[in-house]
Amino acid sequence: MAFKVGLLGLGTVGTGTADILLNPHQRHPLLQEIEIHRVGVRSLDKPRSVNVPADLLTTDLESIVTDPAVDVVVEVIGGLEPARSLMLKAIAHGKHVVTANKAAIARYGDEIFTAANAAGVYVLLEAAVAGGIPVIEPLKQSLCANRIHAITGIVNGTTNYILSRMQSEGSDFETVLADAQRLGYAEADPTADVDGLDAADKIAILASLAFGGRIKLSEVYCEGIRKISAADITYAERLGFVIKLLATAKREPMSGAEDLDRLQVRVHPTLVAKSHPLASVNGVYNAILIEGEPIGQVMFFGPGAGSGPTASAVVADILNIAAILKVGREAITAADGTPLLDPLLACSHQHYCSITPIEELVTRFYARFLSQDSPGVIGRLGTCFGNHDVSLESVVQIGMRDNLAEIVVITHDVCEGNFRQALAEIRTFEAVTAIPSVLRVL
Amino acid sequence: MAFKVGLLGLGTVGTGTADILLNPHQRHPLLQEIEIHRVGVRSLDKPRSVNVPADLLTTDLESIVTDPAVDVVVEVIGGLEPARSLMLKAIAHGKHVVTANKAAIARYGDEIFTAANAAGVYVLLEAAVAGGIPVIEPLKQSLCANRIHAITGIVNGTTNYILSRMQSEGSDFETVLADAQRLGYAEADPTADVDGLDAADKIAILASLAFGGRIKLSEVYCEGIRKISAADITYAERLGFVIKLLATAKREPMSGAEDLDRLQVRVHPTLVAKSHPLASVNGVYNAILIEGEPIGQVMFFGPGAGSGPTASAVVADILNIAAILKVGREAITAADGTPLLDPLLACSHQHYCSITPIEELVTRFYARFLSQDSPGVIGRLGTCFGNHDVSLESVVQIGMRDNLAEIVVITHDVCEGNFRQALAEIRTFEAVTAIPSVLRVL
Repeated sequence: MAFKVGLLGLGTVGTGTADILLNPHQRHPLLQEIEIHRVGVRSLDKPRSVNVPADLLTTDLESIVTDPAVDVVVEVIGGLEPARSLMLKAIAHGKHVVTANKAAIARYGDEIFTAANAAGVYVLLEAAVAGGIPVIEPLKQSLCANRIHAITGIVNGTTNYILSRMQSEGSDFETVLADAQRLGYAEADPTADVDGLDAADKIAILASLAFGGRIKLSEVYCEGIRKISAADITYAERLGFVIKLLATAKREPMSGAEDLDRLQVRVHPTLVAKSHPLASVNGVYNAILIEGEPIGQVMFFGPGAGSGPTASAVVADILNIAAILKVGREAITAADGTPLLDPLLACSHQHYCSITPIEELVTRFYARFLSQDSPGVIGRLGTCFGNHDVSLESVVQIGMRDNLAEIVVITHDVCEGNFRQALAEIRTFEAVTAIPSVLRVL
Repeated sequence: MAFKVGLLGLGTVGTGTADILLNPHQRHPLLQEIEIHRVGVRSLDKPRSVNVPADLLTTDLESIVTDPAVDVVVEVIGGLEPARSLMLKAIAHGKHVVTANKAAIARYGDEIFTAANAAGVYVLLEAAVAGGIPVIEPLKQSLCANRIHAITGIVNGTTNYILSRMQSEGSDFETVLADAQRLGYAEADPTADVDGLDAADKIAILASLAFGGRIKLSEVYCEGIRKISAADITYAERLGFVIKLLATAKREPMSGAEDLDRLQVRVHPTLVAKSHPLASVNGVYNAILIEGEPIGQVMFFGPGAGSGPTASAVVADILNIAAILKVGREAITAADGTPLLDPLLACSHQHYCSITPIEELVTRFYARFLSQDSPGVIGRLGTCFGNHDVSLESVVQIGMRDNLAEIVVITHDVCEGNFRQALAEIRTFEAVTAIPSVLRVL
């Protein structure tokens, strides 16, 4: 008995997926029972690097998701539509779904998982976050006994590549971005990556799994890396930090009302102490640090993108569904006739998590000021921060730039709202010419 | 409906396990359906740090594994007997088993899994390797699409703690060991840890999962860290390396006969380049690097021992079994009446892997020689190595020690047998007083 896969898309990830399915030797024996039944593509006669028999190809993607013979629909076309509609139709036709589509899941996860639960099918998405690195399944299964406190990740390879090169070469953002585009590490339109939107999709998905609730993507604070300058990287380095685009999801205990905990879910460039495990994750690599009780800290590190690694995750999900089908587990229904799904693999959250507004975040800050070189400036900065309850760890005049004094401030943990108010006031100081950068510190 | 756990042992891991089971709040909701039914202990009236109701305790462990009400037997007593017999009896009585017992699984895995497959029950063992770090389940499920090439791990916290302190303090092995014993990081009898036996058990288990065959523990090459001196750590450092006790399992492709691949499975102190991801894993932390096609490299990092982290893995396994029971999957049988187990979760290997004898290993070496300070010695060493087909990367006279010249040699990749023959010949040189250390280089 073979399990039949309907593959939607034969781009980078689809090609990698087909390549594994067609070459099962020395992989898990269950792979020999998986068969590619149909492959949906945009163009039938495009040259391909994988040997999929031509008669499996079709441009009619809808015929795949409705094909009675198909057991598992693998959605690797990406984007919002028609991916969303095809997944929903596949579910309506009783197909299990495997997807690598972080954008669609982060936006329509609610709709998709509700439909899947009603239909009694699984929607697995290991490939949607951090490419080949196992993190979704470990969160669902291996770490399920923990109270998760925080997830902190480098989950976008493009921005990590850019920041790593800025760090090692001392170059500016625009220069490295242009080179990354030339080398294929960044898209022609790099918005989703460099503005942090891709990372926001991923941390929303991870937060939802870790904290057992749905996340409104519009509530995820998101700030990209366009404003990071070579100067900031140099000063951070001198202070013992590297700058990384971190995606963070963190439980904020509310005193006296444990069930009303709020979550911080945010993406922004962050100063990370060089001794921190995430500081040495460079280039296109991804890493996710999970903190919980009683586990302490665990970190998962590996390739966050690419055809092969992402396909590794896609095929793992296909095999996990095949293993379920193999032992007939999908056929189980409760006494009232509703389908019974494995509670660790299915997503059954109904409520939305309460998200802390960014103004209420408590964090350390790094800020850089350009001011006229007059003796009282540092004193006035200090006084203003003090008036707004912002306690400072250090204030250093780094040197001169364009005849202006360059001052770097690092705060202790402070309330972001207070810090912003202090900055607004400082902007009115005549001596302060500019505040070129404000960054959070881990 | 509650799932009933029979817990064998209430030591470090058992206490951590009970603590999670008794405090399900903010963990996976399925945990609320798990109930501790009985707890087997050696002494009923020992003071305990966890609040297990006294009427659950019994000293009659056999009554737990035969109790018809028990769904899952959790074996955390450790050691070979009665752990093995209790697990086998539990299986014979149709119980699923969760164990943290690397020693018993590495030795009796064959017998235990054969019995489990016949009885249609699962034996899960996430906690047996690397404590709380998810690595067994990711290997079985998340990475199952890959051809695994190699697993390289720091899987023993005690030796990593000792080596890390020797490295940072410049101290000798015996000094740090004594202190580690005082602090509780090393046992009074440290043999299993410092001689690499614990790491050998773990790499045998990982190799078996990664390469789909059984491993004879007696064929695992095993060398501990007792002979590592402060001098070697200093010289390694100067050459750009740190010394780690690595456990390695590696597929050796045999040309023209892919199915006859042999495995290297070995534990020994190793010089690791400082830039390697495993080089910065210090203290009691563990890390496992898995290399495969198409995933590339992934690394899992975290706490390799301790009550809480190990219990996190034990309870995850309990929940995974509860999830299976919840959807009635365990009741499935094939047409011929034999029980059907999930092929990703069960262990069904029948054959034993063929293991490469250590003499046939191809690796780089580091060796340190003490010789009389006469001009021809380096030349004679070089000639002797050359005669045995051992190609050298560097030969450096580091300095003088006890009026003897201290010479450090690093080879290219060479056959271990050839290298050993050259060393045997060099030992006969009158000018060579001693060869205090010979270490492999990653």
